[in-house]
Amino acid sequence: MPFNLASYIKSQNELINRFLESAIPDSMHDQRIVAAMKYSLMAGGKRLRPVLCLAAAEAVGGQPADALPAAGALEMVHTYSLIHDDLPAMDDDELRRGKPTCHMAFDEATAILAGDALLTLAFQILSSVDVESSNSSQASAWLQVIRTISSAAGYGGMIQGQMLDISSEGRILSIDELEAMHHLKTGALITASLHCGAIIGGADAEQLKSIERYAQNIGLAFQVADDILNVEGDPKLMGKAVGTDRLREKSTYPSILGLTTSKQMAKNLVRKALQAIENFDNRSDALRAIANYVIERRR
Amino acid sequence: MPFNLASYIKSQNELINRFLESAIPDSMHDQRIVAAMKYSLMAGGKRLRPVLCLAAAEAVGGQPADALPAAGALEMVHTYSLIHDDLPAMDDDELRRGKPTCHMAFDEATAILAGDALLTLAFQILSSVDVESSNSSQASAWLQVIRTISSAAGYGGMIQGQMLDISSEGRILSIDELEAMHHLKTGALITASLHCGAIIGGADAEQLKSIERYAQNIGLAFQVADDILNVEGDPKLMGKAVGTDRLREKSTYPSILGLTTSKQMAKNLVRKALQAIENFDNRSDALRAIANYVIERRR
Repeated sequence: MPFNLASYIKSQNELINRFLESAIPDSMHDQRIVAAMKYSLMAGGKRLRPVLCLAAAEAVGGQPADALPAAGALEMVHTYSLIHDDLPAMDDDELRRGKPTCHMAFDEATAILAGDALLTLAFQILSSVDVESSNSSQASAWLQVIRTISSAAGYGGMIQGQMLDISSEGRILSIDELEAMHHLKTGALITASLHCGAIIGGADAEQLKSIERYAQNIGLAFQVADDILNVEGDPKLMGKAVGTDRLREKSTYPSILGLTTSKQMAKNLVRKALQAIENFDNRSDALRAIANYVIERRR
Repeated sequence: MPFNLASYIKSQNELINRFLESAIPDSMHDQRIVAAMKYSLMAGGKRLRPVLCLAAAEAVGGQPADALPAAGALEMVHTYSLIHDDLPAMDDDELRRGKPTCHMAFDEATAILAGDALLTLAFQILSSVDVESSNSSQASAWLQVIRTISSAAGYGGMIQGQMLDISSEGRILSIDELEAMHHLKTGALITASLHCGAIIGGADAEQLKSIERYAQNIGLAFQVADDILNVEGDPKLMGKAVGTDRLREKSTYPSILGLTTSKQMAKNLVRKALQAIENFDNRSDALRAIANYVIERRR
């Protein structure tokens, strides 16, 4: 029976959303900050990072459910970065996924603090996993997860990528600059997602290396495919306008390499990602299906 | 020989500043974000939280140096909160400690990201302590430190306090509301500072309880004393204007209770803090001296 990605993603998303819903108990706390956190966190993203995290745990032979705190924390870190990137002082976006952005739905101060609170809550969740009763190597594993996520999200990763993105506005980038920017801005956290799943899944050094190679290729492929969709995607399917990159004179893979070469590049990256995990058994079917989906998706 | 607090604080500050300086290596990374992080982190605060953290480690019989990563992380979390609180969308402050605030010295986007980066770096440092070679309970202790700091800084602590502060602007608070606000906005992280030092110092349950009682009293005493200084402090000694709370119609202890009762309250809180650690030996002399300093200080 072929692997059914749609039903896989549906069931994983249910798991993840249940985890996220219960991660912010709203009793006793300021209602406005909690409302803003939930508003952005539950706005219905693709949950790409958590899904990759759980799939990596499974691929190396672990239990996906064990990696749920990491998956949830990754989505919180991703959501915080979107809230702050949307702020007037940054990209000044009023809509995200067809809904008002956090600072539009609430106000700027609340949006800044909701982002801060989601980032902080991610680390609270990662450090609250019950490791007392189990073996001691587990505490080290969760410290490693915290180290992985904080390095990827910090000034040497995602934040540096956002700085580059801001400073490159209105300037045509070289392909190397574009790749460096994406590598930091989105690639680092996607790689961290797979890495954390693998750690909690109990990966050995060899498996970790394979997962990392998969991660680097899939992260970049995802970005190239996003750029392609912005050129030739169907606005109805995507639920958002296309052609916006061109209007904003943003440097993208199609704008630098052309559409044909960009498509070839995305295919090559997916092929390399699949190669990286070719020795894995059928527990990595989800990772394989996600890799193919990256270039086949229409939204 | 009586305990010399001035020379104690001087030597601890040197330790802490050296740690902070080396915590942000500036090679390879975007220079602007690193410059903004260092600008605010090295702007010369009192280092109250790190000093309390190291002193607590010593008071329970541990090595203060072991707690340095916690002390450094606490100062980063404190600095991030100041950068974000100063933003135009929040308190809109142009000066801090006589220097332009981060968003004035750089720009708003850089200030938001520098705050984010310092918060993230705090958790990177806390999860990068080398625990592999030592005993396994150490990894659990650092997880506990991360849990303590993230809970105190998050939406159930400091961030909620800032939300309350914003929403109470221009409104006269009751003494209970004022206390709740301070408890969250500054008390939670001060308590966490002492708690983390005690954990890393190897405190037993009894010691932890005493340290926590000390912390809660000293945190509030510090705030009451701050309010009093804003009424009758010497602007020359303090390096900043006084009487600003009254001009802004801010609810303070003196404005609600009067100056005499506020002073009595601060004294009582310090007495209770000293009582909490009265069974500790002379390794807690620093904590005792700091408690007395809180109400004796002139700046």
